Amino acid sequence: MTTAQTLGAAQAADSEPTAGLVAGTTPYPWPYDGALSPERTALIVAGWNDEWWARCHDPAAVVDRIRRLAESVDTVITIDHAGPSRSRRSFDPTAGSVPSIAGSSVVTAAGIDAFYGSPLDPVLRSRRTDLLLLVGLGLETTVHSTMRSANDRGFECLLVVDACAPLDPDAVPNAVSMVEMSGGIFGAVGLTDPVLAALAR
Amino acid sequence: MTTAQTLGAAQAADSEPTAGLVAGTTPYPWPYDGALSPERTALIVAGWNDEWWARCHDPAAVVDRIRRLAESVDTVITIDHAGPSRSRRSFDPTAGSVPSIAGSSVVTAAGIDAFYGSPLDPVLRSRRTDLLLLVGLGLETTVHSTMRSANDRGFECLLVVDACAPLDPDAVPNAVSMVEMSGGIFGAVGLTDPVLAALAR
Amino acid sequence: MTTAQTLGAAQAADSEPTAGLVAGTTPYPWPYDGALSPERTALIVAGWNDEWWARCHDPAAVVDRIRRLAESVDTVITIDHAGPSRSRRSFDPTAGSVPSIAGSSVVTAAGIDAFYGSPLDPVLRSRRTDLLLLVGLGLETTVHSTMRSANDRGFECLLVVDACAPLDPDAVPNAVSMVEMSGGIFGAVGLTDPVLAALAR
Amino acid sequence: MTTAQTLGAAQAADSEPTAGLVAGTTPYPWPYDGALSPERTALIVAGWNDEWWARCHDPAAVVDRIRRLAESVDTVITIDHAGPSRSRRSFDPTAGSVPSIAGSSVVTAAGIDAFYGSPLDPVLRSRRTDLLLLVGLGLETTVHSTMRSANDRGFECLLVVDACAPLDPDAVPNAVSMVEMSGGIFGAVGLTDPVLAALAR
Repeated sequence: MTTAQTLGAAQAADSEPTAGLVAGTTPYPWPYDGALSPERTALIVAGWNDEWWARCHDPAAVVDRIRRLAESVDTVITIDHAGPSRSRRSFDPTAGSVPSIAGSSVVTAAGIDAFYGSPLDPVLRSRRTDLLLLVGLGLETTVHSTMRSANDRGFECLLVVDACAPLDPDAVPNAVSMVEMSGGIFGAVGLTDPVLAALAR
Repeated sequence: MTTAQTLGAAQAADSEPTAGLVAGTTPYPWPYDGALSPERTALIVAGWNDEWWARCHDPAAVVDRIRRLAESVDTVITIDHAGPSRSRRSFDPTAGSVPSIAGSSVVTAAGIDAFYGSPLDPVLRSRRTDLLLLVGLGLETTVHSTMRSANDRGFECLLVVDACAPLDPDAVPNAVSMVEMSGGIFGAVGLTDPVLAALAR
Repeated sequence: MTTAQTLGAAQAADSEPTAGLVAGTTPYPWPYDGALSPERTALIVAGWNDEWWARCHDPAAVVDRIRRLAESVDTVITIDHAGPSRSRRSFDPTAGSVPSIAGSSVVTAAGIDAFYGSPLDPVLRSRRTDLLLLVGLGLETTVHSTMRSANDRGFECLLVVDACAPLDPDAVPNAVSMVEMSGGIFGAVGLTDPVLAALAR
Repeated sequence: MTTAQTLGAAQAADSEPTAGLVAGTTPYPWPYDGALSPERTALIVAGWNDEWWARCHDPAAVVDRIRRLAESVDTVITIDHAGPSRSRRSFDPTAGSVPSIAGSSVVTAAGIDAFYGSPLDPVLRSRRTDLLLLVGLGLETTVHSTMRSANDRGFECLLVVDACAPLDPDAVPNAVSMVEMSGGIFGAVGLTDPVLAALAR
């Protein structure tokens, strides 16, 4: 099952885009206040270091989508999970390096959650961003943990699922349904193209 | 599919219990150092307030298991998620109240993650506990978020899945597999009876 | 030297009050944007529990000022420093109890810094307050630590020094000068009456 | 009044050094358990960036003491306060750069408190250090804020006052007395030579 098919039903409803909303998000129209803009939105690229590049399934497949999203908002932050927990797991060091994302700043985090042991919260508040697009390497790990933490901190979050590489491709429906089945308690789920369309309006 | 069936294969391997380890945990024998004891272990009962009681599927089914686990360790903490995020979601206020857990202390948290906006981290460190048993109401929400956060902070975690009430019973296999497929990156998964047996040895 | 004398030179300049500013604050006119209002301001009453009541010099002397300040803003939070660090120090349990402050909410903190192990940050952000008046019991301890932490988090802070009880009355000039000599890096220092006058305009 | 004179009375008592304790600390013998060792001790060099080098009084005077302390313990961390609050204050960019400290790791913090928006807490816990020597640039600012925060987190702290450069030299007695008058609530105060002697035993 492809990522796009996962959100197929939602996309079918995408007949008439509404200004300030991303079309086809589930389980609710995102953002909650219908006032999307590049100024108040940050793209958080979780898992953007060599360990997660090596551990994820086909990470190269999401690079182009992440780069297009990066061009559409004012604040782009890639996360280097380089804290003390890093060395606890092994990975193939010859798998390659994460490519660069133009216009991004790097935030180093001590945990799988990008907010833990990092300046991410004060950086986002100082830029007055309150809407977050969550993407990156480790859909079930870095992206999910960071989305949960961001929601606790009061940020309104969209998981852009086709810009996330999973560890296990079979986990994609699970990761999406965990957000949807919880009634949107952590935010909503959407796809790259409708996000780009909404930000371009 | 029942919770017990979810871990069926793991349990089949439970022929000869090893001192200091919980039998049948996946994806690795827990705890990592094989030195379980009541003194260094805390039971974290996430979601222990009326909102999560009302929102979960059959929460009464896990009370007895939680109470037996509470009798087996020195530190028992129930989490009241009562922060500013509380009122954002509606729930049925006539669904009842969480029953008491003898011997427990209450920690109030500001997030779905029990560590966010709460004294949970300093409380656990002051009691010198480093092993956590994660149970409670909201397997996909409060329990999962708290386990992820605990692991980032360096605690060694076991998700005791049959002592967790899910929001959606169909989410149980997903929630378990998300931990297992990530290679134990957030900890391990086990069942109540083997935990009790290991702590009684 | 009295607290009022400490700020005597500053007060002398208080000839013509400016709307949206507190008269006579040092080392800079507070708040920085000259737009004080009850809606965006919170009164943080640090050290508001029996331990600090017992340990401070003449705490009763500041109660009336704190109550008048509490009537002038929309958000009033008293801090109960009740975390694991509490029992490390002894105090006279017969010294009495902190009096009530009408209209206040209680936040329990795990540290001398009211933000540590507490929901204070999310509570303040959920109420959209960004200006803080710092008062309470323990000028050199709870009040100073909380002001430093609040400033790091991006809140604009005013130490209302005559509404703070010190542990040692000789420490008042030191505590004030530490804020002034640092060039306002933690915020500014002012007195109760000009704050009330500015909020009443 | 020199820094050394500030602690003169304490030093006078330094007749017979006790193994595992730093001679002459006030207001109590440090560390509390009398078991000092290089393995469990970290040197925290706060304010170690160009902004604080430019803003402090005679920072070059403390470099040699900091370097000798760095040679005496297993963990040395310099703090770069580079978060979003950095640019709020101006300083002379021609004042020079902080010299290197051999054997140190850099931790970047988002606040004047080195623990705020930084991995310092997880880094110290992963190295199993529980005793901290606080030194650096900004006795009244970065060093004091970091010491207060460390104490809240359960670390046992010694302010090594003659290895700290103040913003204002007249603030040294105030900064020392604020620790002493609070009954050691934030830790103790000592001098470099007795620390080196105790660590060499």
